[in-house]
This record gives sequence, C-alpha cells and structure tokens, in this order.
Amino acid sequence: MAQEIEIGLGKKGRRAYTLDEVSIIPSRRTRDPRDVSTSWQVDAYEFDVPIIGAPMDSVSSPKTVIEMGKLGMLGVLDLEGLWTRYENPEPLLEEIAQLPEETATARIQQIYAEPIKPELITQRLHEIRDAGVYVAGALSPQLTQEYYSTVIDAGVDIFVIRGTVVSAEHVSSSHTPLNLKKFIYDLDVPVIVGGATNYTAAMHLMRTGAAGVLVGFGGGATSANLGTIGVQAPMATAIADAAEARRDYLDESGGRYVHIIADGGIGSTGNFIKSLALGADAVMLGTPLARAVEAPGHGMHWGAEARHQTLPRGKRTEVGTIGTLEEILHGPSHCADGYTNFKGYLRRAMATTGYTNLKEFQRCGVALNISNRL
Amino acid sequence: MAQEIEIGLGKKGRRAYTLDEVSIIPSRRTRDPRDVSTSWQVDAYEFDVPIIGAPMDSVSSPKTVIEMGKLGMLGVLDLEGLWTRYENPEPLLEEIAQLPEETATARIQQIYAEPIKPELITQRLHEIRDAGVYVAGALSPQLTQEYYSTVIDAGVDIFVIRGTVVSAEHVSSSHTPLNLKKFIYDLDVPVIVGGATNYTAAMHLMRTGAAGVLVGFGGGATSANLGTIGVQAPMATAIADAAEARRDYLDESGGRYVHIIADGGIGSTGNFIKSLALGADAVMLGTPLARAVEAPGHGMHWGAEARHQTLPRGKRTEVGTIGTLEEILHGPSHCADGYTNFKGYLRRAMATTGYTNLKEFQRCGVALNISNRL
Amino acid sequence: MAQEIEIGLGKKGRRAYTLDEVSIIPSRRTRDPRDVSTSWQVDAYEFDVPIIGAPMDSVSSPKTVIEMGKLGMLGVLDLEGLWTRYENPEPLLEEIAQLPEETATARIQQIYAEPIKPELITQRLHEIRDAGVYVAGALSPQLTQEYYSTVIDAGVDIFVIRGTVVSAEHVSSSHTPLNLKKFIYDLDVPVIVGGATNYTAAMHLMRTGAAGVLVGFGGGATSANLGTIGVQAPMATAIADAAEARRDYLDESGGRYVHIIADGGIGSTGNFIKSLALGADAVMLGTPLARAVEAPGHGMHWGAEARHQTLPRGKRTEVGTIGTLEEILHGPSHCADGYTNFKGYLRRAMATTGYTNLKEFQRCGVALNISNRL
Amino acid sequence: MAQEIEIGLGKKGRRAYTLDEVSIIPSRRTRDPRDVSTSWQVDAYEFDVPIIGAPMDSVSSPKTVIEMGKLGMLGVLDLEGLWTRYENPEPLLEEIAQLPEETATARIQQIYAEPIKPELITQRLHEIRDAGVYVAGALSPQLTQEYYSTVIDAGVDIFVIRGTVVSAEHVSSSHTPLNLKKFIYDLDVPVIVGGATNYTAAMHLMRTGAAGVLVGFGGGATSANLGTIGVQAPMATAIADAAEARRDYLDESGGRYVHIIADGGIGSTGNFIKSLALGADAVMLGTPLARAVEAPGHGMHWGAEARHQTLPRGKRTEVGTIGTLEEILHGPSHCADGYTNFKGYLRRAMATTGYTNLKEFQRCGVALNISNRL
Repeated sequence: MAQEIEIGLGKKGRRAYTLDEVSIIPSRRTRDPRDVSTSWQVDAYEFDVPIIGAPMDSVSSPKTVIEMGKLGMLGVLDLEGLWTRYENPEPLLEEIAQLPEETATARIQQIYAEPIKPELITQRLHEIRDAGVYVAGALSPQLTQEYYSTVIDAGVDIFVIRGTVVSAEHVSSSHTPLNLKKFIYDLDVPVIVGGATNYTAAMHLMRTGAAGVLVGFGGGATSANLGTIGVQAPMATAIADAAEARRDYLDESGGRYVHIIADGGIGSTGNFIKSLALGADAVMLGTPLARAVEAPGHGMHWGAEARHQTLPRGKRTEVGTIGTLEEILHGPSHCADGYTNFKGYLRRAMATTGYTNLKEFQRCGVALNISNRL
Repeated sequence: MAQEIEIGLGKKGRRAYTLDEVSIIPSRRTRDPRDVSTSWQVDAYEFDVPIIGAPMDSVSSPKTVIEMGKLGMLGVLDLEGLWTRYENPEPLLEEIAQLPEETATARIQQIYAEPIKPELITQRLHEIRDAGVYVAGALSPQLTQEYYSTVIDAGVDIFVIRGTVVSAEHVSSSHTPLNLKKFIYDLDVPVIVGGATNYTAAMHLMRTGAAGVLVGFGGGATSANLGTIGVQAPMATAIADAAEARRDYLDESGGRYVHIIADGGIGSTGNFIKSLALGADAVMLGTPLARAVEAPGHGMHWGAEARHQTLPRGKRTEVGTIGTLEEILHGPSHCADGYTNFKGYLRRAMATTGYTNLKEFQRCGVALNISNRL
Repeated sequence: MAQEIEIGLGKKGRRAYTLDEVSIIPSRRTRDPRDVSTSWQVDAYEFDVPIIGAPMDSVSSPKTVIEMGKLGMLGVLDLEGLWTRYENPEPLLEEIAQLPEETATARIQQIYAEPIKPELITQRLHEIRDAGVYVAGALSPQLTQEYYSTVIDAGVDIFVIRGTVVSAEHVSSSHTPLNLKKFIYDLDVPVIVGGATNYTAAMHLMRTGAAGVLVGFGGGATSANLGTIGVQAPMATAIADAAEARRDYLDESGGRYVHIIADGGIGSTGNFIKSLALGADAVMLGTPLARAVEAPGHGMHWGAEARHQTLPRGKRTEVGTIGTLEEILHGPSHCADGYTNFKGYLRRAMATTGYTNLKEFQRCGVALNISNRL
Repeated sequence: MAQEIEIGLGKKGRRAYTLDEVSIIPSRRTRDPRDVSTSWQVDAYEFDVPIIGAPMDSVSSPKTVIEMGKLGMLGVLDLEGLWTRYENPEPLLEEIAQLPEETATARIQQIYAEPIKPELITQRLHEIRDAGVYVAGALSPQLTQEYYSTVIDAGVDIFVIRGTVVSAEHVSSSHTPLNLKKFIYDLDVPVIVGGATNYTAAMHLMRTGAAGVLVGFGGGATSANLGTIGVQAPMATAIADAAEARRDYLDESGGRYVHIIADGGIGSTGNFIKSLALGADAVMLGTPLARAVEAPGHGMHWGAEARHQTLPRGKRTEVGTIGTLEEILHGPSHCADGYTNFKGYLRRAMATTGYTNLKEFQRCGVALNISNRL
C-alpha cells in the first residue's frame, strides 16, 4: 500500500481519509442540469437514482421497500429483522422508538431474541413481489446457509449478504463456513456482498462472482465499532481503494464489471455525492431514509449491530423525521440541510462540475480539506 | 497541479487550505501607518478601500449602495433581487428578518417566485446614478442574456456576473448558452465575473476579457454548498491559484492585468487582510456589511442560493447589527472583534509588515497554522 | 529517530500519535470467534485476559484484587495507598468520593500524609494470598528501597515498580539511587517496571532484567502531566516503539522476551484492543475498572499523582459506575459504549481481523485516521 | 526558510506550530529534583526563576512589581499605563474590573486617553527602587523617544521596549524613527526589546545590542491580533527560530549571548516549561500573574492593545483569582490545573527529563502531538 506512515518504530499505517475531509472542486466546465442523467443499472435492473436502502428495521418494511421501488431506487428488506421474527412487528417498532436511552439496547436485545420464522421470510418477499417492484432481501453471512434456500424459493431479484466485515476467506475449526464463491456461483440471482474496506478485501469479494460489493464496515450513525472493537475504515479511502480493485478486476476477469456500493456513514446529500465522485457506482443509505415520515423507525434508527446478545456494536440513535420518502429522494427542498432531494442535488453537482452521467462523474476532481466543517 | 495526495488507490486530491489555516507573519521591517495607501483602481474607477459589496438583498439596496459609494468602496445591486421584483420590497425585507428558523427558506422561495420587472432594473440603476456614485449591478449567468440590454440601456459603470460557479465553457443541449467571450467583448463596460475556484477556471475567465474575476464558490456564512452538493474550494488556496493565473495571463496577453476579487467566507478584518496578502486585488464582502445598522437585512443575511425553488443551497443566517456602514469601513472600533474599521486594520497590518501599497502587500509572508483558533 | 519534523530552526521533533488517531483495519480474512484465544502468560503465571489492574486506590483493594484474580486477570495492590496507611480506609474512600471538586486535591493530600505502616503491607498481601489468587503489589521507585524487603518477606508472585517516568539511570547527588539492575537481579520474583515512553527508555528497562515494562507516562483520565509539566507521550507511538525495543532486546539477549504492558489513557474496549494491535502484550487498566460496582472509588477515580504534597499532577475524576467487575471483563454488554465485556470485544476484534492469538494479533493492520471521533 | 508548503500556486508558507501542538518527551535518564537549578541570569542580574512579569496594568503595579522582585523574578512596570497617567489609579482599576463585557473596550479607551505624566514615571520607579528590588520599566517603541530620558534619570536596572511587533528597521516619511541600534548603544542599562517572531527579526534585534529579545507578537489571552489584522506567529516555531538566531549571533558577534524571552500565550506551567525546552532563556508571563490575589486587575486581564483609540487589538478577559503570587511562583499546589507552583513544576520537569540547569534543558526532547488536548 502507498503512503505508509511510521506510527512508532516497527509499526506503520496508512493515512486514511473520511468523507468529511474531502470536497468536490468545480472544474472549468459547467453543464445544463437537464442534460444530466443519474440513472444506474446493475445486472438487468435499472434505477432512476443510484441509491439502495439499507436493510435495517428502522428503514425498511415491506411497505417502505415497495415505495422505494416505485420511487426509482432499490429497497432491501432485512430478512433477519422484526418482519421475519414477528407476525406483526408494528407495536414493537413503536415500543423501540419510545424506549428510554439507558435501557434501549437491553430491550432491543430481548426483542430480537425471538427466533426467525422461515414462513415469514416467504410471506414478506411475496408481499413485495406482488407490488410489482424489484425484490431484494438481505441476510447476514452467519445465517445465509440456514435461510438462503427459503429466500431463493420465495423469489428475489437481488440477494444481499451484509455484515460488518465479510471476507471471502472465513476460517472456522468447528464448522464448515459458507464458501462464498461456490454459493454465489450456484445461485441464479445477482448477489451484492460486503462490507469490504480495502483493495484486497474488495478484490477477493469480486472474485466470488458478486455483482456488487458493499464498501464499509458498519460505520453509520448507529454504529459503535470504533469505540468497541477499535475498527474503522474511513470511507473516502475505502471507496477509492475498492474502485481501483474494480478497475483491476475488470482487466483480470476479461471484462466483468462489479459495482462498488458505498455503505455507511453517509448522512447527507453532500456525502452521498462525494461517494460517487470518489468512485462508487451507487450508495446504500440508512440515516437519510430513516428520516422519512414513512420510516418504520418513527424517527429512531438502529441496525443489526445493536441486537447482538452479548456484544452490541451499535446504538439506537435519534435521527428525527423531516419529510416524505419522495421529498427525500426527489424534492423539492425547502431547507438547505442536505437531507432532502438526493436526486436533485446530485444532478446539480454533476452539472456544476460538467459531467453528464455517473460513470464520468467518478473522474470528478476532489480536494483534501482537513478542516472541513459542515 | 502540485502536491497531490493519495486519498485511496487511484484517487488523488490536492491538500487545500482555508483562510483560517493561514496567518500573516511579520517581517523584519515595520512602517508608519500614515505612509500606507489602501487605494484600489479597476479600469477607470478608483476606490479608497479594496472592498466591493456583495450583491445580496441583505446587504445592498439602492440606498446602501449609494452610501457605500460615498464611503469609498463599490456597492453592487442584485438585479435579480427584491428591488427588481417589487415596487416596494421593504415590508418583505422586514418579514424575512422576522421569519422563524424552520420556515424561513420556504417563505423566501415564495417571495422570490415573483417575476423580475425590467422597468424596475432601470429605475433602481437610475436612482444610484442620480446620487453621483459609481453604478454597478449584478446578474446571474442564467439570466444575463435576458436582462443585460436593460442593464446596459439604464447605464452601469461596472457589470457583475456572479454565480456559484461560472465557467467560460457552459454546455447545454437544449439552448445556446451565453458565450461569455463574445458577450464581454461586445459590451462597452468592464465586467467582473465569477466565481472561479482554481487556476484553470480563473485563467479561462480572464481570457473572456473580464476586468475582474471573482474567486469563490458561494462559501460564505449563508452558504450550504458543502453539505448539499459536496462542493467547497478552500479560499486561501483558491486565491493563491487565481493570483498565479493573473500573473501568467498578464504575460500571455502581453500586459492585460485582470483583478482577482476574493468572494465568500470572509467575515472579519483578519480574513479580509489575509485574502489580500494571499494575492487578491480586492475583496467582495457580504456578512461584514450585513452587520451594518443600515443593512436591508435587519441583522439577517441571505443570498441568491437560498431562493432556489427546489434546490436551496443557502440559508438565512443571523449576523446581528454592530454599527454604521461608516464605522464598519472606517472605524473607530470600540471592540476588537474584527467587525469594524476594515480600512484601519488593513492599514495597520500593512504597516506592521512594512508595505506601503496593496500590490506590494500581496508579497506578504504567511504561515500555515493548522490549529488556528480565533 | 525517524520522521523528525522541524518545529522551528534548530529544533526538531517526531510526530507522535495517540490511540484516538489510530484505527484497526480489517484484512481479507475473518475467523470464527470460538477459535480465538485471549490468554496471556508472563513468567510462570497465566491469565485468561491480558489485563492488569492499575495499582490505584480507586481501583484496587484487597477485595477487588482477589476478585480480579478469580476473573482471570492480574490485580495489583498499591502498597503506598490507603490500605497500607490506615487500618480501615473505607470511611476515607467514601469521604474522598464525596468531596467537592474544588477542595478534593487538598483533602487527598492531607489523607495521604499519614505514614505507611510496614505491618499493613504484610497484612494486606497475606489477605490476598489466602484467597488463592496470584499476589502482586506495587511500589513507587522512590520508596522501593525502603519497603521492598517487607514486600518480599510477605510474599508476592509479581513485583510492580510504577512511576510516571522510571529510568534505568536515576542520578542524585544526595543519596544513592536504587540500582534497578542489581535490585531486580537479586530478587527472586518477576518484576514489572515503568513507565517508559520510547525505544531507548524501554530498552534500558529491559536490560535491568525486568519481566515486563510498563509503557506510559501517567497519561490516564486522572492525569494532568501535560498541563502541569508539559510531558506527554502519545500512546500509539510509545507502544510501537517499545514493541520494537522488545524485538531488538530479544535478539540482543539471545532470547529473553520482555512483556510490553500499555499503561494509561486506555478507557474503552476499543483503545484496549488497539493497544494490543500496536504491539502490547497486555494492558494495565485504571478507568475501566474504576467503573465497577465493586470499585473502592465509588465512581470516582484518582492516582498517586494526585497525592503529591506540593506538586499534584493528577485529579480526582468522576468515571461513574456501570456494572460489576465480571460484566466489565466478561460481559454480557447491554450497551455499546465500550465499557463492558473487554474479553468479548477483544475476541470479536481478533475474529474480525482473522487472528487466533494475541501474539499474532500484534501484526494487525492499522490506519491513521486523524479526524477520528468516537 | 525550511519546509515551505504550497498554499496555492505561487504562494508558499511554512507550517508553524503552537505550544499546544508540542509535548515534552522523557528521555532514558531521570534526576533528583533537589539537584536541579532554575536560576537565570541576564547581564548582572540574577533571578531564582526565569520569569518576567508582563508590563500590563492587570499584572503590574508598583506594589506587585516589588513583591515579584522579592519572590525571585523580575517585575516590570508599564510606564504608559494607569500608574503614570493617574495619581491614584486604584478606583479606575476597580471600575475596569466591573465593566460590563459589551462596553469594556470603549471605557478602557476613554480612561487611557488621559495623558502620561513624566513626574509619575519618576515617582513610580523611585517607589520600586526604595523597596530594594531590581527596577524595570517598559515603554512602547512609539513613545520611547519621548520618555526614555525621564526613565533613565529616574533610574532603572533593565529597560524594556515592548510592542506587538518591534523591528530594527522602522520606516516613516513624516518623522525620524527611533534608531534602535544607536539608542541602545547610548544607554547605560541593558535593554530587552521585542516582540520578534522569526529568525530574521530576532537576529536584527540582537544586532542592535539588546540584552534580551522578546519573542512573540501579542498572542496572549487578551490579544485579538489574529482576528483583527490576521497576524499570528505560533509560539513553538517562533521560540525555536529565535533560539537559532541566538546561536548564530553568538558566533557572528564573537560571543555575545542575547537572551530569548518567550512572551505571550503561555497560560500554564506546562506551556511555560515547554517554552524553555524549545530554547527560551526566560518567559514573560501575563495571565498566570493576573490570576494572583494581589493582581491589580482583580481577576480581569488586559493589555496595551485594548487601549488603542481607534484600532483595539485586544480585549479585557476574565482570568479569575486563584492564589497568592507566592503560591503561583513557589507553591505549594493544591490543584493540578497548572496555575500555581511554576518553580516547582519546572524543577520536576527538569528532574523527569534528567537536566540540572536551564541551559541544558533547552536540549530537551519534544514531540509533535497535533491532537493534544489539555
């Protein structure tokens, strides 16, 4: 790796950058926003905006996933969340939103101790399919082997395997771990898998045959990975690394283009746009969608990491409610906080820097501005 | 560009610096403040201080523009603001100042939806001309073609074209964009145009025949470009880049000197002075003038970006009221907050570092002091 | 030393890094947490977790030291603390916890003015021995000569000599200082000694024959060394330096492995884990254990530096009470603040980065992430 | 100058460091504090601690200057302050301490508009002389020519000329400026002059024949130079630069040793000690002495910069009252805030790093720790 810095004698580390340390710099050309396209296609599926909803119970329910699809993005249901553990999770969603700060994690752990019911996986996916939008569901790498056949039988267009860190090489002495390469090869549907946080990890996931790689480590607003296990992969560096792996793998594979999807810690339109400028093909959003009027979290936001029974690495976080899903995606905005009109601001940023499509926009110039403050 | 740093594999960016990261360092010589001149001349027009008022409704009305002229600086009226949309905008200015935080942008969007009236452009410019000061008005690049002949017919001494990012090369498939080079060549009056944020963009604007180039991207106190579209051009780096373009263009053009005008994010006398030390010929001020007793914003401050109907990239911001325009420009100061006596502190800084005129002061030594705190 | 930076002409300094500036980066491999071992052995003594309790009265009493031993870590009694000055210090511990902020240090100075009683040293160590756990006690370098024979006669398994800065070469004109090399050679028990903060100091302490070297300078939550005497040794750099000294000394000595124990400023599971990833063999914890229900400090925390009669370099600090010692060490966690389940999160971090034992984990990849915020 | 960094094309600046970015690193040797000497000698005058009181009305009155002398440091009276403008300034000192924040500067400007009375200069200096301590008084470079003969006739041991920036080469078209070289040569008493902020400026002041050079730019707690005129000279870099000039001048002059006195922005024992470690021979203290029970400022602190009639570059700042002058200089401390016992902590820092006198301590190792927080 380039630019290793000596932390102390005998230990080096790379200087890695967060999205907040980067800003987009205009070039000498501008363009009419009407000539700009934000469309994104992965496998046979085309979307109006390069946005995937995070499979988190505070973001995705069958109902919001359907609405996301109708609005031109991809919604993904968490197949290990409340909707596959309970027939009617709505009272529990309301309860979680009301829990006092101090006891929230403990009660979330209890609620998620309820076992997953395979028949609910089937039922939820059918609900989404019936609405006529693309169907996508997510499992963790730990439970993929147990539930994937239920998922495939129920029918999905895109299969998501998402964990804090997913490696192509998981080692265990007590059980045979999921062989990602064989698993993906055998599946008929495109798989999006991650998080990976650097060139090597992303390259290995690409070699499994994945259609897309999630870049991130669970670094969003609800995460506590840095404080609990010391892990953090600053996103600007992680995205640029993974994009380089995409280019190298394209060559190595003789032309297979694997999509890079930035996942985690992208709370505003500004950071969303920077992620694409740094090389991402699409972005998985949590917090911005949890702010929707329709969001199941009722203004609260939490992820899978908060429900671990003994080692929670995430927290329920208040994000508030600021507008409808449609306003968040398509505007109009009546406030310049970067929380609404993701498509509109993206289009404007592309016009301001002179690019007409997302692939070109990945070449956008950026500067390091360490003292950036929003 | 020099000093590119690897953000991640395959993506580099320059380290760019804000004014806050820079400080002026005294040299071995000092000078009597009485021997120092702060005068500035662009084209045939000479000013006592190198300050241009920002064409923003919270700063400039016909009345304050006239007063600015009498105080030795250049006032510029926003020809797309309230004064050309309404016969009597004063009640609306008062209403905007009183709006609650949450709904301010939405109401501003409504108020500015009123169409521009060409006869009011004429009327406002005549009012200023009648007062005997230099006349300057600003249009956005989008509306320049529609209204410039009205402006020229009404008569201006200096014509300002100001947008967040103005490029010499704007591309559109649906209409023929303004050809800046031809437009400026055909005009009889000197044109100040921008913002540009780097060497190349500034150089291209110089080649259009502009008398002055605004350096900035809408980065002032009322701006939200970083949060909404991820764009930011740290001003210390942008000014130094543009000054280098000025030197190179001077050579390329065989002697045409194009003025560099720092625009945006300069709230105090300290940053004003640093801008000049970094190579600016003059500075466009918004916030400092919005703090005047006479300011039409009544202690509130907002720019054109806040009135975009679907994509606001700016906010109404409270700046307070601290003294008369005269005190802000010429003092005396009775408080060391850097909000008053712009001329006096500039003179003092020049004396402290041993320079007698602004052109020499551009060679002033500076240091990078990353942990600067005001 | 590498990477010296010019602070000014004629004065250079190394850029040194704190734990907060470092983060662990996952590699391409993950591992089953059940295959991971956190065990640590120093001399003949083996522990379930690589944790030593700091010898501070807010952390260690005979009772908590015994409990620490039973929980698989090493507890160390401060042999110059309240338990060897008073027959029954419990009312004083309660009083200290209740003192108002302004007068806390002054009253602490009074309470610790009471002389140390050798017979209490003997009595306390016997209490611990009788409970069947490993016995360890700490003296300062200043008082080691006066009390060590009492300690040895009472019987300890591990002898700790701990000061802010302990050097192998202490110079005095008025008395013969402790000859550490001879002293350690003559003792029958393994000695852990420090703090050392760089390669040279650590190397010199290794050459005294110590079994372990404490790396730190009194930089924990209760310390005020930076503000009072300007001394600070950022821990990430200090640990990496000392680990390099360990490697070089291993070669120089023909195979003697001296343990590196990070000591100070490690308040969370995240920083604990980073210390090990940077090369530490074990970690001495203060604040995390002072947060225990059983902690003698009753939610307050202070160290030896606060009791200096004329030059206090530490403060009583509120750390709160968050769970039992068992929860802090072994979980389960019901909150992701990084304050409980040190063993569990360590195991998880090792699994996430693909390592099976602590020695291998010292090779873990890290990144510099200067704008880290927990 | 070394290590110039490109701010933008065509403008470079040095990275300069503040005291907060530096920390002292222990070496491999420690020393008995009783073997450490903190004494300092300039010309024929010897002091117990290397501390000079800042000539500011909130710090120095005839009474406190006398007490400072008795406590082993050098007190300096501001000969342009209230004590030479008013027969009895005590009611005014009390009034200033009570002024509301908003109007403090305006009223300070009024109070200091009262003319200086030469006979009061004489009277104040005689009072100090009569007490049997060294006599030192300070003038600004602007008024030195007008009042120096009064000062010399009254009798001083050390003459101080102190301004924000004092250059050896002051240029004026309207009057003949003070020729420092000739002036100092003609005087019979040693002169301390400054501030200088870099190698060249310090070297030029040394060549005037000064006994000591103040290093600083008015950067203390009461200063607003950065905000008002953009000037700041980070102290760690400035001190190291000036110390290098001292070494070079020593050679150039064939052995004349000019003392470097750090002046400004040194509020704690930690920063005081770091200044000496970076190469200063002594330190001029303002804030720490303004915190004395005896301080004329009654817990408030202000300097000459606040009284400028039209361009104040300083503010009255609340610093509080924390102990007697004796406690501040010699302790004992009952709080680890770094506000008391300057001598004790210095002695301790020297012992911790193994040095016996101040000259040796200038070689002390330091590290750059950018994320330092007190």
